[in-house]
Order: sequence, then C-alpha cells, then structure tokens
Amino acid sequence: MNDTVILDRKADFPGLLTPQGAAWHYLDTAATAQKPQAVIDAMSRALGRDYATVHRGVYARSAEMTLAYEAARRRTAQFIGAASENEIVFVRGATEGINLVASSWGGASLKPGDRIMLSVLEHHSNIVPWQMVAERTGAAIDVCPLTEDGRIDLDWLEANLTPQHKLVALAHVSNVLGSILGAKRAAKAAHGVGAKLLLDGCQAAPRMRLAMAELDCDFYVFSAHKLYGPTGIGVLWAREELLDAMPPYQGGGAMIDRVTFEKTTYAPPPQRFEAGTPMIAEAIALHAAIDYVDALDPERLFEHESGLAAQLREELRQLNSIRLFGPEKSAGIVSFAMEGVHPHDLGTILDEENVAIRAGHHCAQPLMDHLGVPATARASFGLYSDESDIAALLRGIERTKRIFG
Amino acid sequence: MNDTVILDRKADFPGLLTPQGAAWHYLDTAATAQKPQAVIDAMSRALGRDYATVHRGVYARSAEMTLAYEAARRRTAQFIGAASENEIVFVRGATEGINLVASSWGGASLKPGDRIMLSVLEHHSNIVPWQMVAERTGAAIDVCPLTEDGRIDLDWLEANLTPQHKLVALAHVSNVLGSILGAKRAAKAAHGVGAKLLLDGCQAAPRMRLAMAELDCDFYVFSAHKLYGPTGIGVLWAREELLDAMPPYQGGGAMIDRVTFEKTTYAPPPQRFEAGTPMIAEAIALHAAIDYVDALDPERLFEHESGLAAQLREELRQLNSIRLFGPEKSAGIVSFAMEGVHPHDLGTILDEENVAIRAGHHCAQPLMDHLGVPATARASFGLYSDESDIAALLRGIERTKRIFG
Repeated sequence: MNDTVILDRKADFPGLLTPQGAAWHYLDTAATAQKPQAVIDAMSRALGRDYATVHRGVYARSAEMTLAYEAARRRTAQFIGAASENEIVFVRGATEGINLVASSWGGASLKPGDRIMLSVLEHHSNIVPWQMVAERTGAAIDVCPLTEDGRIDLDWLEANLTPQHKLVALAHVSNVLGSILGAKRAAKAAHGVGAKLLLDGCQAAPRMRLAMAELDCDFYVFSAHKLYGPTGIGVLWAREELLDAMPPYQGGGAMIDRVTFEKTTYAPPPQRFEAGTPMIAEAIALHAAIDYVDALDPERLFEHESGLAAQLREELRQLNSIRLFGPEKSAGIVSFAMEGVHPHDLGTILDEENVAIRAGHHCAQPLMDHLGVPATARASFGLYSDESDIAALLRGIERTKRIFG
Repeated sequence: MNDTVILDRKADFPGLLTPQGAAWHYLDTAATAQKPQAVIDAMSRALGRDYATVHRGVYARSAEMTLAYEAARRRTAQFIGAASENEIVFVRGATEGINLVASSWGGASLKPGDRIMLSVLEHHSNIVPWQMVAERTGAAIDVCPLTEDGRIDLDWLEANLTPQHKLVALAHVSNVLGSILGAKRAAKAAHGVGAKLLLDGCQAAPRMRLAMAELDCDFYVFSAHKLYGPTGIGVLWAREELLDAMPPYQGGGAMIDRVTFEKTTYAPPPQRFEAGTPMIAEAIALHAAIDYVDALDPERLFEHESGLAAQLREELRQLNSIRLFGPEKSAGIVSFAMEGVHPHDLGTILDEENVAIRAGHHCAQPLMDHLGVPATARASFGLYSDESDIAALLRGIERTKRIFG
C-alpha cells in the first residue's frame, strides 16, 4: 500500500539539515513544525525595516503595521472558514486559548452542579484549565472513554451527555495516536443537551482543511508553531455572539474603551481579549505560514501525511518486536513501543542516526495510564516528510534491535 | 546645557531608515523600540537551522534548544540582578506579567477590606488588572496623587498607606512623563505597612541599570519589545518565596508534575507559570537584546537619553507655543502640547518630515484627566537617538506653526 501524495518541499526548510549539512530526519512535527524560509523572512522584515507598533501610531509606518496585523487576522479567519475576522483572537498559543475560554467563558457560565466533558486522550492543556475552573466554580468533570482502537467513543458520548453538561472539550486530532474525531457528530451530541463544544485543533489545523461552519463547534484553538509558523502566537476562534458576551481575560492597554479609577469599560471583541502590545511580528509571520500551507492545499497535506502514517504502520507491523497504538487511520502521527526497549533509549539511538522522534508521555499522562505504559515512542509527519524519513527510522529501529538483541 | 553621552548606533538598526533609504527620526521608543540586526539574526537562527522544541525532546537539537532557552532565563536574571534564575518567569509581555500577579497572587491573597495602592500616572496595564481582581476579591483601590511636576507623591504615599494595604503597584518610570520613581523609598513605605511592592519596569528596564535586591521590590515586570528585543515575550521577576506560594495562572503542558483526572499536581516555579510551548525563539532573541544593551552599559544609556530629554525640554521652552508636562529630570520621555494644534495633527505633519512621535492618551487616561488634556504629544528617546532627531522634530514643529499660524 502506498497512496502517499508526493510533496517535495524539504529545500524550503533550513531546519531540516544537521549542522554538518546532512539530512535531518525530523519526525517530531506534532511537537512543533519546522519553518519555511518564507516565514523566517517575514519575521525578519517585520522586526526590521517594517517595524513599528500597531493601533496607536499617527505616523505612516505604524498605520501600515496595523493594516498588516489586521490582515493577518483576516487571513486566519479566511483560512479556517470563520464567519468574520472579529471571531479571531490572537493568543500566545493554544494553551492560552483554552485557558482564556475556561477562565472567561467558564468562569462566567459554570456553577455548582454543572458538568464538563473531556476525553481520555486529551493533552494536558485541554485538561488542567478545566480542572482549575471546575475547582473555582464547583463544576464537575466527566471523561469520555476511547474505542478499542483509540478513538473518542462517540457512542458512549451520545449516551452519557446530560443537560448538566455545559461544555464538551475534545481534541480534533489526538497528539499521541493521530485519531481523528467525528467532529460534526460530537457537535450534534453536545448541542443536543445544550452544551458548547470546544475543539483543540493543534494537530488538525496543520493537517486538514478547516471550515468552522461545517464543524459546527463553538470554540476552536490552535498554535502557530505547529502550523509552520512562529512560536509565541496562537489562535482562538469563537462564535461572535459568545465572544461578545464573555468578560475580559486580561486587563491592560488596547482592550479598553475608557479607563477611570471609578469605572472601566471594555472594547468589543476581539480587542477585548488582546490586552497589551500584541505579538506583532508573530502575527505577520503566521500570515506567511498560512499562505505557505494554503498554497500547498491542506487536503493534499492530509493525504500526504496520513499516507505516510499508513505506510509506517504497515512497515512496523512487519517487525514482531513492535506494539502499535491507535487507529489504522491516523492523521499523520504513529505511536508505538518496542519490546524490551524504553522509548527514551530508542529515541537516543535514533538521534545518533539523525532521526528525531519523541519519547515520553506527550503531555497526555491519563492516556498513558489508559494504554498501560509510562511512555510511547512517537513518529509524527509534516508536509516536508517523505519515504526517506521512514526508511531512516526503520534502519534505526533495526540497529536498536541489534544493540538490545 | 548639553551633557548628552554620545552613542552612535543607528547603523545597527535596519528599522531606522525610510523605504527610500532616508533617515527616519523615530521618537516613539517608549511605545516600542527598534531592533538591532543582532536580535533579528538571533530570531532567524532560532526559527531556522537551530529550531526545535524545548524540555521534551530526547534528540540533541531539542536538548540544545532547552539549554539556550534556560540560558536566556539565566542571562535575564543576571541582567536585572535577580538572586536566582528561578525568579524569572517568561510571559507574553509586561501586561501579562501584571495580570499573572493580580490573578494568582492577588486572587489567593486579597479579601474584602484589603486595599491596593496605585498612582494617577499608571499605564492602563497597571490599573485594569487590579480593578479586575478587586472586583473578584472585594478589595478596594486607592490612588496616590502626583507632585506638581508630575512625580508620584511619596510624601502622600507614606502618610496614607495603612495596614489594610496589601499591595502597592507603581511605574518605575512613567511612560508619559518620564518621571522616575524613588523606588527604594516606595519599597520602604510599602513594607512598613506589610504591603508588597510591584514595579512596572517597562520604561525603566531599557534605560536604567536594574538591581532587584537594591530596589527591594517584590514583583517587577517588563516587556522585551521595549528593550530592543522581539514582540511576544516579557519578564516577570518575583521573589522566589512569593512564586513558590503562588497558585498556577494557566494550566497546560510543562507546568505540571503529574496529571490525573482525580488530582493534578504542579511543577515548582518558574515552570509552574509557563504552561504550554514557550516563546522559544523570542527568549533567544531577548537574550541577544540583553547582550546588546548590556554591552553598551545601561548607565550610559540613562545619561544619553536623559541628556537628550533635557536638551529637548530646553529647546521647547524657547518656543512660547509649547506647554511642557512632567518633571525637569526625565528618563528620556518628553510630553508636551502645542497651543492651538491637536497632538494628532502635529503628529501627522511631523510624519511628512520623517519624524515619528506619539500623540494620544498613551494608555494613561487617568493621567490625561489629571493633566486636563485629552492627549499629549510625546517624544521618547532610545539608545539610537541623537541631536539630529531633536533638530528634525524642532524643524517639524516650526513648520506646523507656520501651517497653523
């Protein structure tokens, strides 16, 4: 089986070489993606010859920077099929996006007796903020189990959601297993009991064509650094009427309407949620990343990476020392364990072969508990990955077998 | 009078040219500083050939990136004279730093009857977070008035602090007037009644040698983008024992010890306050900015910029159409008004002459109310400023006089 879509973009990514100029087989894109030169150049220009602050300058360069910052917001809205750019809040990353929703929306909406539904496979960033707001508001948390093959069990979800559930928060794609959520079905189930649906799109945004209206969720978050963009910025999308009703999260400059010591009034969204000087250069570099990804077509990226994942699973299945986790159909992420070898040891040996995988709990300790392992080895693909990366990984695994054999 | 220290660094800053290659007289450094090429290059390398995530990789490049990220923390600690790098929390910017303290420390420490002392000249980012936590906890806010010449009135502060005051939060240098706080005296007054002192160091960190132990404050915040560093990152310094006792602000990856759905435990500081993938490239670029500023010597920068401010005040005083705000001794920031000309109109005309000043409320509306104006014109200096910038500003003011005359 090999239905991989061929993409040949390694040359665009300065990070894909070792210091000696050899090929670096980077299989940790689920942790963070390498950046194309176009993104790095956009960042350099924004911090250099184009640099100025936004929103407040009366001089031309500041006005131009404001236009560029708002153009990044508009481009992001278009990329994910938002109804309006006012639905796009720039945050530090997906983690902050979830914390913002938990604190602002959750803090204002949740009360004792209310329930929040998560799942076993969530990343810590989609667990801990809810635990914190649950403690603050008296709400309780429920946990949706997984199917045998590691997908969120929507049959169970449909059967167990109640009118007490005010929020359902799920990973669109699992960062450990690559499992893809049936998002529309989850939305229907959540809305059927009057709950809101938040999707953690960190692994989906770089790998799938997103259309907010079609997904029918209420909140969506993702990080730029996993979408081939810079560190330090991420996106919270929310329905405009939800943002309108939410109290501010952080106070400061740019998010106010009028400040007096007696009474402060706030700006409308999205500014209400962007206190302080924003991530100006980062927003412009995110714009460049979105242009880059969009030009390649997210649907092709999905075919490309899910094809590589299927190919790797098939190859690993041939080796009787490997245990594979997760569903057959993965968005480009493959977790596995090697009999008798700790994932960290495997990772270290692979590193000597210029192959970078992740070994650990992947910020998903409850899922590790569920799988009954302290850690997994994880290979995750990006748009620049190809069969040479799989071949290098397999060579490294063979060598590890010889060393530990 | 001309005791200006001569620095000649314009050539290091690609942002100080117009698109046509002419000199851009950038007098808005209090809003954000231009970046030296060394900072831009550090950012490019971090996003390019050196790029990897931190904390979690078993491969060498991730380990190296982790070392670089923690070296940035150590360098920051050293630069501000912190007792330990564990006292340095990387945040999105000063605004987030204050919100973090207000929410975490304030949320856990403040109760009805407690009081928070601010001043009339605070930036919105040092007002609104306290209003938000006051509303949440039932604490009340008091406002320290200014001396006639626009400094925080420490006589009044000493006379009016009470044991009900749990926190005093003041600008180390005013972003509008350039007024320099007598920080040690403020600390003594605060500690005398058992209150903590937070200093907003946004305008001080780029202009003064900082030594936390000497200042004797409890919390200190500043933004990298005002210190010739990148957007998207700032610094919260707090005494280690205070951070130790503070609950987490945001939940997510990297800030946890162990996550289960029953109970989550948290990492010690500073990790406890750095949820999610951090601002990796930004921390490395901040390191480069600190190296750059430190090599020039912050004490020389202070002499340089306060000298330019004194010179500008003297020149403006010769023009009888100008009203000067603030004290004679300014850290490098001069606010003024021109009779019969709205600051925005002045800013627009100056822009045509390649002179960039700020016109507006400078995110300090209560101070504008106190001064009895809707806005001021503000010229603020940076390490790259020189007498040619002052001359260009004065030429522009003369032209404005002719236009409006």
